[in-house]
Amino acid sequence: MVRTRTRLTREQRRAQLIDLGVQVVGRSSFDDVSIDDVAAAAGISRSLLFHYFPTRRDFLVAVAEASAEELLAATDTDPSLRPGERLRQGLERYLDYVGSRREAYLSLVRGATGGDPALQEVFDRTRQRNAERVLEGLGFAWASAPPLVRLAVRSWVAFVEEASVSWLAGDGEVARDDVVTLAEQALSDLLERTADLTVP
Amino acid sequence: MVRTRTRLTREQRRAQLIDLGVQVVGRSSFDDVSIDDVAAAAGISRSLLFHYFPTRRDFLVAVAEASAEELLAATDTDPSLRPGERLRQGLERYLDYVGSRREAYLSLVRGATGGDPALQEVFDRTRQRNAERVLEGLGFAWASAPPLVRLAVRSWVAFVEEASVSWLAGDGEVARDDVVTLAEQALSDLLERTADLTVP
Repeated sequence: MVRTRTRLTREQRRAQLIDLGVQVVGRSSFDDVSIDDVAAAAGISRSLLFHYFPTRRDFLVAVAEASAEELLAATDTDPSLRPGERLRQGLERYLDYVGSRREAYLSLVRGATGGDPALQEVFDRTRQRNAERVLEGLGFAWASAPPLVRLAVRSWVAFVEEASVSWLAGDGEVARDDVVTLAEQALSDLLERTADLTVP
Repeated sequence: MVRTRTRLTREQRRAQLIDLGVQVVGRSSFDDVSIDDVAAAAGISRSLLFHYFPTRRDFLVAVAEASAEELLAATDTDPSLRPGERLRQGLERYLDYVGSRREAYLSLVRGATGGDPALQEVFDRTRQRNAERVLEGLGFAWASAPPLVRLAVRSWVAFVEEASVSWLAGDGEVARDDVVTLAEQALSDLLERTADLTVP
């Protein structure tokens, strides 16, 4: 019997390994990603995995970046909607993502990314990109926003993160739509307080 | 020459080691606490330190708990003030603490506590205690507050955490008092939105 083994390019192999890593993180957390399990699932040896990612940390950073991209892609919004509707759609998608990818989300936002500065940086960058996207989605340029507005929007993203975690932990105690409305109102109040801006 | 060595009780020795740990964390982060440095500073051997704290993790959890107590004590407020004034005093003290204990604060709130579930629990408990204290300081009982109000206040604590971190990172770009006012207004708006409550 002849078994056909697929020969992957270097980039395809890296992508496959990252994808498996994202799946493992989705079931557990960054700390629990077992390099051996990922290698076994890919049908390669542990040492070959380390050929693609020199250290466990390199691999985890690549997985964290892929998770962050997944979150950002899943919560992207329809630019043809009115700004206020876009904000609501973004929040709905955010909570739906959090609900469906519970563990991956918790491990990304709850410090389960470890004390590792490289993972922390992925997390910070994701929070920052979310803040910029939200403000720009409402039609306000990030770069020209006053420092206090930027601080307020970034802090509001942290607010939404904790609201999502609390919502998950409450197990149905609070309705998804109430969390969406709360977050929507909070942002609208913050913009009004910091810059007299009204969500269009 | 006779050197007098102070003989400490077990509890005194533990407290001394924790205190040294808090100082080391204050200068760097949880991840960087060197057991050897702490033992050397206390004038004891590494193995004797492990006699008081069986593992590095046990020691770090004790240090994190002491840091959290320090934060809570430093931000306690005068109960004779009116509720709204107490909130403002608490926020001022919070930002002053954050400013003076920069590294310790960052390492406690920025996931630098690592993927360790025991450290994560200390962090969660601190956020929760802050939320309860703030709501009760305003004269509203935590236990009888609607789930959405509790979620909003916990999320607001996360908002204040990120606002503090952004304020520190901005290096004077935003005034401390503007952050205090923003946080104050945000909580007042949230309570009004979730429960028609007015900050007294």
